[in-house]
Amino acid sequence: MANELVLLDFWPSPFGMRVRIALAEKEVEYEYRDEDLKNKSEFLLKMNPVHKKIPVLVHNNKPINESLIIVQYIDEVWSDKKPLLPSDPHQRAVARFWADFVDKKIYDSGRKVWTSKDAEQEAAKKEFIENLKVLEAELGDKAYFGGDTFGYVDVAFIPFYSWFYAYEKLGNFSIEESCPKIIEWAKRCLQRETVAKALPDQNKVYDFILMLKKAYGI
Amino acid sequence: MANELVLLDFWPSPFGMRVRIALAEKEVEYEYRDEDLKNKSEFLLKMNPVHKKIPVLVHNNKPINESLIIVQYIDEVWSDKKPLLPSDPHQRAVARFWADFVDKKIYDSGRKVWTSKDAEQEAAKKEFIENLKVLEAELGDKAYFGGDTFGYVDVAFIPFYSWFYAYEKLGNFSIEESCPKIIEWAKRCLQRETVAKALPDQNKVYDFILMLKKAYGI
Repeated sequence: MANELVLLDFWPSPFGMRVRIALAEKEVEYEYRDEDLKNKSEFLLKMNPVHKKIPVLVHNNKPINESLIIVQYIDEVWSDKKPLLPSDPHQRAVARFWADFVDKKIYDSGRKVWTSKDAEQEAAKKEFIENLKVLEAELGDKAYFGGDTFGYVDVAFIPFYSWFYAYEKLGNFSIEESCPKIIEWAKRCLQRETVAKALPDQNKVYDFILMLKKAYGI
Repeated sequence: MANELVLLDFWPSPFGMRVRIALAEKEVEYEYRDEDLKNKSEFLLKMNPVHKKIPVLVHNNKPINESLIIVQYIDEVWSDKKPLLPSDPHQRAVARFWADFVDKKIYDSGRKVWTSKDAEQEAAKKEFIENLKVLEAELGDKAYFGGDTFGYVDVAFIPFYSWFYAYEKLGNFSIEESCPKIIEWAKRCLQRETVAKALPDQNKVYDFILMLKKAYGI
């Protein structure tokens, strides 16, 4: 059976970036299709009828949805190359916990930073930094979240780095000032070609968010 | 190494019930500790400093948090008995997708039913039933979500059945009328001793929610 692999994605999506990084780590080739989210393809609606969201990985005509589930799928199917999740059950649970933390806390608190103003924005920035500090404490002095090697939590979290400049510029604050180790870690991750190629330029993301703000009238 | 296993839980929690069912399916003995959520134990705060929530499974002094992560952990550690997740990567991804759907949609839309009134409550009931219908369509004519055997999605979803009576009574509607197959499936699950023992009586849950409503002044 041929490994027909199609990724339905949208370039600024941190969730899509996770899948791009995981596929690159496994050195798997695939067809990338950038979706127009205002005019979703019939194929996307058919492959993810429940949530109608990207990313969707379509492997031999079978869809896999939800970014962290896709990353685990990739890790299980291409298990011969660079494991992303650790093999020990407790360490796996810890990795899943932190990836879930990123899912629950980072996107939403980051979004609040650029969609709010004044006192509300101050509160959003505070919350966002508090969440990053929790992650920074977990990172500690390790090179990556799982230890010495790039893994599942790094894949889950690093895409948000491409949004940091927009958060900072629109929130008028410095992430590095509060969380220097997170920035060091991000730069370390970006030295990997798999990450550097998957993440768009921070200025391009900033321009995209400016466009969103205009479209939403905020 | 002894398998010292402690579950920090709270009896009406559907998330805690998932862990109880998974441990029962694996025939693992453990110490059950019911937490007072208004006065959480030092041990709970130490074992889940990030979210400070139950359930937490403490295995040889190491905490595992987040119910679906705990269920996967149990499935991986006690892999010799009744697998909960399928072995095929695509089927595993599908199971994870539906368990995630339950997490994202059922608790919140169910909560809206008993915390709202009038037009808002009508909308909440409609949304709740729509979510159940999505699950009913996925169930189709299968005995369980994964096919012929009780598995991961069943573990994730069946605890909410113990809340159905409260939803119905407080929302003045019948779930069975809209989703007869979900009720048939729930009754099938309840024939398992592992499920029957983990789920509290529906009347007891109803009384608990009445108490919550009173405490919240709603």
